[in-house]
Amino acid sequence: MASDATPPPIDQMAATTLKDDGPESLALWAQFSDRVLIRSIVCRSDGGAGLAGQKVRVGGWVKTGREQGKGSFAFLELNDGSCLANLQVIVDKDVSSLEQLVQTGTCIYVQGELKKPPEGTKQKVELRVEKVIDVGLVDPSKYPLPKTKLTLEFLRDLVHLRPRTNTISAVARIRNDLAYATHTFFQKHGFLYVHTPIITTSDCEGAGEMFQVTTLFSDSDKLEKELKENPPPAESEIEAAKLLVKEKGDIVSQLKSAKASKEEISTAVSELTRAKDSLASLEERSKFKPGLPQRDGKIDYSRDFFARQAFLTVSGQLQVEGFVCALSSVYTFGPTFRAEHSHTSRHLAEFWMVEPEMAFADLKDNMNCAEAYVRFLCQWLLDNCLDDMEFMVKNFDKTAIDRLKMVASTPFERISYTEAVQRLENVTDKKFENKVEWGIDLASEHERYLTEVIFKKPVIVYNYPKEIKAFYMRLNDDMKTVAAMDVLVPKVGELIGGSQREERYEVIEKRILDMGLPLEPYDWYLDLRRYGPVKHCGFGLGFERMVLFATGIDNIRDVIPFPRYPGRADL
Amino acid sequence: MASDATPPPIDQMAATTLKDDGPESLALWAQFSDRVLIRSIVCRSDGGAGLAGQKVRVGGWVKTGREQGKGSFAFLELNDGSCLANLQVIVDKDVSSLEQLVQTGTCIYVQGELKKPPEGTKQKVELRVEKVIDVGLVDPSKYPLPKTKLTLEFLRDLVHLRPRTNTISAVARIRNDLAYATHTFFQKHGFLYVHTPIITTSDCEGAGEMFQVTTLFSDSDKLEKELKENPPPAESEIEAAKLLVKEKGDIVSQLKSAKASKEEISTAVSELTRAKDSLASLEERSKFKPGLPQRDGKIDYSRDFFARQAFLTVSGQLQVEGFVCALSSVYTFGPTFRAEHSHTSRHLAEFWMVEPEMAFADLKDNMNCAEAYVRFLCQWLLDNCLDDMEFMVKNFDKTAIDRLKMVASTPFERISYTEAVQRLENVTDKKFENKVEWGIDLASEHERYLTEVIFKKPVIVYNYPKEIKAFYMRLNDDMKTVAAMDVLVPKVGELIGGSQREERYEVIEKRILDMGLPLEPYDWYLDLRRYGPVKHCGFGLGFERMVLFATGIDNIRDVIPFPRYPGRADL
Repeated sequence: MASDATPPPIDQMAATTLKDDGPESLALWAQFSDRVLIRSIVCRSDGGAGLAGQKVRVGGWVKTGREQGKGSFAFLELNDGSCLANLQVIVDKDVSSLEQLVQTGTCIYVQGELKKPPEGTKQKVELRVEKVIDVGLVDPSKYPLPKTKLTLEFLRDLVHLRPRTNTISAVARIRNDLAYATHTFFQKHGFLYVHTPIITTSDCEGAGEMFQVTTLFSDSDKLEKELKENPPPAESEIEAAKLLVKEKGDIVSQLKSAKASKEEISTAVSELTRAKDSLASLEERSKFKPGLPQRDGKIDYSRDFFARQAFLTVSGQLQVEGFVCALSSVYTFGPTFRAEHSHTSRHLAEFWMVEPEMAFADLKDNMNCAEAYVRFLCQWLLDNCLDDMEFMVKNFDKTAIDRLKMVASTPFERISYTEAVQRLENVTDKKFENKVEWGIDLASEHERYLTEVIFKKPVIVYNYPKEIKAFYMRLNDDMKTVAAMDVLVPKVGELIGGSQREERYEVIEKRILDMGLPLEPYDWYLDLRRYGPVKHCGFGLGFERMVLFATGIDNIRDVIPFPRYPGRADL
Repeated sequence: MASDATPPPIDQMAATTLKDDGPESLALWAQFSDRVLIRSIVCRSDGGAGLAGQKVRVGGWVKTGREQGKGSFAFLELNDGSCLANLQVIVDKDVSSLEQLVQTGTCIYVQGELKKPPEGTKQKVELRVEKVIDVGLVDPSKYPLPKTKLTLEFLRDLVHLRPRTNTISAVARIRNDLAYATHTFFQKHGFLYVHTPIITTSDCEGAGEMFQVTTLFSDSDKLEKELKENPPPAESEIEAAKLLVKEKGDIVSQLKSAKASKEEISTAVSELTRAKDSLASLEERSKFKPGLPQRDGKIDYSRDFFARQAFLTVSGQLQVEGFVCALSSVYTFGPTFRAEHSHTSRHLAEFWMVEPEMAFADLKDNMNCAEAYVRFLCQWLLDNCLDDMEFMVKNFDKTAIDRLKMVASTPFERISYTEAVQRLENVTDKKFENKVEWGIDLASEHERYLTEVIFKKPVIVYNYPKEIKAFYMRLNDDMKTVAAMDVLVPKVGELIGGSQREERYEVIEKRILDMGLPLEPYDWYLDLRRYGPVKHCGFGLGFERMVLFATGIDNIRDVIPFPRYPGRADL
C-alpha cells in the first residue's frame, strides 16, 4: 500500500469523478482517497438525481438494514456523518453475504453505481453496490447503541460512541459550523486571531476558582522511586567526604608553604576540587526527602515546573489586551476553565470562549460588533445547516429555526441597567425568586424575562453598577456605573458579557486598590495604560451557550464533545 | 456615549466611506466604529492612491515622528498592527500641539482627508489630519521600546509590549493567516472541527511527561483556613454527643417497652435522629486534617475535582478517533502540553497542534492529505502575507519566500524508512553525531540532511520499525514495520508525524500488551475496534513548527504569543 506511494500533482489531489452542480464546488468535498462524502451526493440541490450513472466509492456505518426478495438483496441506510441524511445502498447476495451487512453499526466501504430509484420513492438517488471493499463487523448482541432511542443522559456514559447517534452528530456539525463562522466573521472584519495562554500565572477576575497546574506530584513520585533504588548517603559517608576535603586542603597548604612546583600544586588543587564537588553532591542528595517539597511549612512552589504557582486560564482577556494595544483588532477562541462545584445544566469545568477585543472603540461600538456577530452566526446556520436544524426542531425544540430567523433579522433592543431594573420592578404578572432592586446582579430569571417576555427578542443591557462588575470595566461619568454590557437571548439568557476597558491609568489603579486587590500582579497590565494607552473594548461569548441557543438542547454536557464537570473527566 | 446607543440595521454595520478596488472588498475591513484599518488604505493594489479626497478616521501608534517647517507641522509614521506598512500622517500645529505626538509609542486617533503626496515620495497616499480625537501619551524616557533595535531575547521579558515591534506583529499576522488557512483547508475538504478535551484522564503516548490538573492545593488551603476559624471538635464534645445519643436511645426503648403512644414514641425517635446527625457531623469534622487528603499513605485523588488524577492533554488523537469512527473526516486544532525540562529553541511546554483524522483511508491517502495541506499553507502565505514575508526575508531569513514557493510547487519526495536509512548510510561527505543503522529513530541531523541536502525538498519517510513507534500505528504485513509517516521539511526537519491506525482488534490488543501497557484504560479505545471498525489514518502538525518554517525565525519562543517553558509562564 505505502510502498507504491507516488506523489500526485497538487491539482489532482482533490479530484473526484463527480461533477459540480452549483456554486459550492463538489470537488471540494472529495477526500484524499477515492472516497466521496455522502454529503456531496445527497445534499446537492437535486438530491443527487443528476449524478445517476456515476461510479463512486462511499463508506459509512449502517443505520438500518433489511434483507428483501427472500434474501436475494439488501437495502442499507448508510451514514458517514458528513450530513444527517443517509444514502440508500442496495447490495445483491451475489456481491456479498448479506446477513452481516444489515446489522446496525456495521461499517462498510463499497463501490458502485449511482442510480435513479423507482418512481415514488423518497430519495432521489441510490447506490447499487458492485464491490464491497471493506467490512467492519459488529456483534449486534453486544453493540451499546441499538436502534431503539437512547436518552442523552445515557449517552453521556459513552462519549466515544455517542457521535454515531443522529443527535450528537447533528450537534457536532452545528458546532463545527459555528466555529468556522466565528473565524470567518472576525477574519472578514480584519481581526487577528491570537492564541492567549492556557497555563497562566494571572487570575483575570481576581476571584476565580482556578485549576492548578503542577508537576510536583509526579516529581515527588519519581524522587521517592529514585530514593528507594538509590538511598540518600548515610551521615558517615558525608563525614568521610568532609575528611577527604580537609586532607586534600591540607596537602595544598603544605605544598604552597613548601613552595612546591606549579605542577604539583595544580594537581593537588584539582584533587581538592574533585573532593569538594563530591561532598557537595552528597550533601545535596542528603537533603532529598520523600514527599512534596516544603519551605517554612508550606509547599515550595519554586520547585514546581514554572518555579511558581500556575493555573488554567479563566479568560484570555487580560493577555489579549496586550495585543489589542498593538494590533488594534484581535480575538481569541480557546478553552477556558472554572473549578466550580456546579452540577447545573449550564456549567462546565472546561468550555470554549470567543473573546474579541477592539481598539479605538467604545461601548456602543462593542454592542455593534456583538450584535453583528450573533446575527451572522444565526444567518450562517440558516444558510448552511438547515437539515440539522430541522432535525433539532423535530426532536428537541420546535422554535429553534424560528429563533434563528428572528435573531438574524431583528435589531437587538438596547436598554440601560437602570431601565432594565425599572421594567422588572413594574412586572406584576410574575413573582421573581430573587428580589429586583437597583444594585443587584440580574439573575437568570430576570434576564430571561427581559428577553423572552418583555421584549421577545435579544436585549443588550448596558451601564451596570460598578460594585457588581470587574475592576477593568470603564467607570462612567456618573461615577456609579461602568461601561459594561450583557447580551441576553431567549432560551439561554446571558450569551455575551463585555465592556469598554478602563484605559485611564489613575482610574484603574484606584479601582484595583478599591477592590482590595494587590497592584504588583497587574503591573504589566498597568503598563498598557502607561505607554500610549488607547480606548478599547471587548466581550466574551460562551461558545457552548451559543450551541445551546442554536440547537435547543437543554444540557450543556451534550453540546461539547467531552464534557468535564465535578467527578467526571471521561477519556 | 452608551446612552445614545441605537441599533443600526445589520447591513450598515460593516459600512465604510471607502470604495472597493478589487475582489477583496474593502468594506470588510471597516470596523464597528467609524475607524478604518490602515491595511484597507495602504494595502490596496494602488497603494491607496485612488482614495485621495476621502475623509477617514484612523488610529494607531506612532512609529517615528518629526517636527518640520520650524515646528509648523509634523510627519508621523502611524501603525495600527493591521499590516506592516505605516500610514504617513501630517498634523499642523494649529490642529494639535506637536511635541507629544511625535514621540515613538504615542497612541493617536485622528480624522482627516487622504491626499496624494508630492511627486517623488515613496508612499501613494498620506493623511492630512483635521481633528485629533484622542491621544494616549507616552513618557519617552520610560518607554521600554525605544526606536533602537531590540533583540528577540530581550523582548521575551516584555510579552505584553512586544507585539508593538515590527517583528512580533509580523509573526502574529503570519500566525493568524496560517490558522485561518488551516480551518479553510479542512472545511473546504469536508472535515469537521472537533474540540477534543484539554483536561484528560488518558495518556495518549503511554509515556508522556504530563502536567497534572488539581484543586487539592486550594482545597487544602481553604480547609486549613476554615479549621483556624472554626476548629475541629474536642474529644469531650464527641463524647458528650455520644452520651446524648445513648440517652435518647434509651428513652425510645423505654417508651417502646412501656407501650407509649405513637406520638410520644415518634417524638422521641426524631430527637434520637437529631442527636445521631449531630454526632455524625461532629465525627466527620473531627476527621478533617490540615494538608492534602491521604489514604494508605498516598495522596487521595478521589478527593480531587474529577475524583481521580487528571492531566493536560499531550494529543487529541485518541479522543478524536471516537469521532472519526462516526463522522469520517474530522480535525482538531488546539493547545497541547508536555512537561519536559527542555531548554531548546524547538520545545515549548504549551503549544498548538493540528490533528486531522480520516476514515476509509490508508497511509497513502494520509500522505496525500498532509502534502496538500502543507502546500496549501505555503501558497496561502504567498497570496496573503507577502509584505510580512518580505520583512522576514530582509531581517531574518533570505530564503523564506523561496522556501514557500518551492514547497507550494514541488511534489514531496516519498521514501520508505529502509530506503532513507540506506541513503544516509551511503553519505560520505558528512559525519553524523548519531550513528545511522536500521532500527534507530532518525535524529534531527538525519532528517534535515535528507530534506536539505539529499533531496532539497520536502520528504515523506514512511514505514518505520514498529519498536520506535506508538502502539496504535498499523502493523504492516512484514510484521517488522508500521504504517507511520513523517513529513520532513528544510529549516525545521520534522513538521508532521502521522500513521494509519491499527483497526484490527486482535492486533492492537496484542500490541498494547507487548508494549507492557495495561488494557483497562484503553477499553473504550478498543470499543472502536469492536463495533464496526474502519480503516483510518491521521497526522499531527506542530503549529509553531509551521510558523518557524514559514518565518525563518530561529527560536520557537518568538512565534507563540505567550511562551511557556521550564521556569517561565509570564502573565
